[in-house]
Amino acid sequence: MQSGQAIKLDAMDIEKYIQSVGERARTAACLIAKTPTDDKNSALRSIADRIMENEVAILKANQIDMQHGREINLTSALLDRLELNPERIAAMAVGCRQVADLPDPVGEMTPFETRPSGIKVGKMRVPLGVIGIIYESRPNVTVDAASLCLKAGNAAILRGGSEAINSNMAIAVCIDQGLSQVGLTTDCVQLIETTDRAAVGALITASDYVDIIIPRGGKGLIERISREASVPVIKHLDGICHVYIDDDADETKAIDVAFNAKARRYGICGAMETLLVAESVAHRVLPVLSRQFAEKGIELRGCEKSRSLVPEMLEATEQDWDTEYLDAVLAVRVVDGLDQAIDHINKHGSNHTDSIITENQAHSDRFIREVDSSSVMVNASTQFADGFEYGLGAEIGISTNKLHVRGPVGLEGLTTQKYVVVGEGTIRE
Amino acid sequence: MQSGQAIKLDAMDIEKYIQSVGERARTAACLIAKTPTDDKNSALRSIADRIMENEVAILKANQIDMQHGREINLTSALLDRLELNPERIAAMAVGCRQVADLPDPVGEMTPFETRPSGIKVGKMRVPLGVIGIIYESRPNVTVDAASLCLKAGNAAILRGGSEAINSNMAIAVCIDQGLSQVGLTTDCVQLIETTDRAAVGALITASDYVDIIIPRGGKGLIERISREASVPVIKHLDGICHVYIDDDADETKAIDVAFNAKARRYGICGAMETLLVAESVAHRVLPVLSRQFAEKGIELRGCEKSRSLVPEMLEATEQDWDTEYLDAVLAVRVVDGLDQAIDHINKHGSNHTDSIITENQAHSDRFIREVDSSSVMVNASTQFADGFEYGLGAEIGISTNKLHVRGPVGLEGLTTQKYVVVGEGTIRE
Repeated sequence: MQSGQAIKLDAMDIEKYIQSVGERARTAACLIAKTPTDDKNSALRSIADRIMENEVAILKANQIDMQHGREINLTSALLDRLELNPERIAAMAVGCRQVADLPDPVGEMTPFETRPSGIKVGKMRVPLGVIGIIYESRPNVTVDAASLCLKAGNAAILRGGSEAINSNMAIAVCIDQGLSQVGLTTDCVQLIETTDRAAVGALITASDYVDIIIPRGGKGLIERISREASVPVIKHLDGICHVYIDDDADETKAIDVAFNAKARRYGICGAMETLLVAESVAHRVLPVLSRQFAEKGIELRGCEKSRSLVPEMLEATEQDWDTEYLDAVLAVRVVDGLDQAIDHINKHGSNHTDSIITENQAHSDRFIREVDSSSVMVNASTQFADGFEYGLGAEIGISTNKLHVRGPVGLEGLTTQKYVVVGEGTIRE
Repeated sequence: MQSGQAIKLDAMDIEKYIQSVGERARTAACLIAKTPTDDKNSALRSIADRIMENEVAILKANQIDMQHGREINLTSALLDRLELNPERIAAMAVGCRQVADLPDPVGEMTPFETRPSGIKVGKMRVPLGVIGIIYESRPNVTVDAASLCLKAGNAAILRGGSEAINSNMAIAVCIDQGLSQVGLTTDCVQLIETTDRAAVGALITASDYVDIIIPRGGKGLIERISREASVPVIKHLDGICHVYIDDDADETKAIDVAFNAKARRYGICGAMETLLVAESVAHRVLPVLSRQFAEKGIELRGCEKSRSLVPEMLEATEQDWDTEYLDAVLAVRVVDGLDQAIDHINKHGSNHTDSIITENQAHSDRFIREVDSSSVMVNASTQFADGFEYGLGAEIGISTNKLHVRGPVGLEGLTTQKYVVVGEGTIRE
């Protein structure tokens, strides 16, 4: 806090509040970092039990949020995300128990290597420290994020959407109870209890207390946080994902994968937004695919060559290559071949997930190596971009950062490594 | 570049210049990323050859810098760092060949794991992209940094100290020749050829073109860069390293290691700055150590208990615990035992390197786990904190960041990983 500055009292109070939350998180982080795996797992299972026991209270709190949401005319999509029901509450508890069942990454050692000097050098996986999670309307993130941070030995500071504040506070009570029951301090997971947006600004600049910020939500939220944060941010902004159907594609696979990559779900970041097709096969696959997309009600926006093959397509503009629709719209471009496809993806993509459909190993090797995305795929749907599908057991988000962690982020992404050096009174000459 | 803004022409020219350097680096990064290991190694060996061939030209350029340095009254320490001689030039070439001999991390794949859906998931190690290195007077960093960036498949933008500009340009000619000779674009390594400080500001905010900034130099430089950069920075600010002599220390090891950790070299970041001694052994080890330090001309600043054992010690103030002397000065504190030592280190340390001297496995286990530093050591001198000593083969710096890479940074720290997913036309249900 910068005392002595002419700031409004309430703003000053928020700074003080975040500072106090941060200080308590920092202290708790030292404790949770050294808590044995079994104790962390007991806490997680205890939290799951408390959630099931408190179903009525959580639903009641959620009803207040839903009522308020309807009053302020939240969209039906937002209301759906906000709504809890017994199934969703049970799913939160199940998720928490699943995290308890995952292997604990903390304390893992690489093999020691003995150096000529006599020292033995290895690396140990350790928690990051304090993780700030900033999210929007889904209350289940409160439990998901808390459980992953805890399991990886971190203290968590949670800042949920203002529209979900009552639901989140009811869930936080369960987390507190679960932690207390196994003798852990409730400071391990703290929910920011003000809906003032200034609290977000204070949190993302609290670099003395917070080691990393993970925003989960829409592009507006993430852009604001990335711009204003002085704490490092693990983020993904866009998922402008591509499927490239190569000259040497198996056409059945191509059609199956391209259709699934778009049509399975539009609204997830791993959904294909642009289909690239090699010129030599476009006349065979595009007409078939466009009929399938049309039946599903998906609007196609094509380049000139695409439209010469499928005249019903709308005309794509330059802007379409850079757009994440998250909707029943798909951009389509016919390319010369692999080189142009890679160029297009590296120019217009968002380094999220891109897939090549090919039977040609040299082409897939080049695509894997040269496409600069967090996930590159061969003959698989981009909709697989997901921590559960990758076997991480859970996911706190998908990173399009290049540093630290890329792609779906599980427990390991919430840790770091330190060098461990063991000697026998060894001195350096 | 923000055109249309009322900025000075020269400032605008610098922005344009950095933009052009950045664009060329981005293009070169795509090429060097896919360059086979043998070609990268040939380039590195060719650069080494060119350096040896151009010894006279490099020395001549260095003489201009040295002459200018004396005119502007650089300190003798700075002049020593700036000075090149045939031995130092040969060492640059040797270093370059050593990097060529290191294993190439790029393209390494983790084993694929087959998931229930049928997809196979693995991770591939890939270059970061464009790396900006900002350094001070030592011209050898030009070759060191270039060779490590190249080997890890990255394009490099080098910004050396203005006092070394002629030396650096002469070395850059050798790098260009080496790259050209094996058919690589000279844009893979670009030296900023203006000494204007505004170029640094432009470089560290060029997030479209630069993936990471690595500053190498004094605290002032690194603080400025950390504060102003929008590109992620791999940095270490301070090396406030501790040796803690535990109750259960072997006293001979304790004295040997503590002496070496301070006295071998004062000016390196791995030098011990504070010695912590458990009260139960302080009366035996401190008098011996203080005599050794006194013989070496090292000034001791102690807490009250230390001074009761060694009355010649000066009085330490609170500030001493937070000071990186890099000089013949050592702070000394007697602590109750392990808990207070860990608390002291986590409070006053700089997360760099800290060592415990003990024969007690439970104590060393706790120290390893609970001290939050990039390197934690047992019975070894903190002066081992070094990429060569750890077996990285080379080092571009030491990171006290928690994210991405911690401790000595070698080739692997200059890379990242991406997920590779292989299916057989696999779609997500």
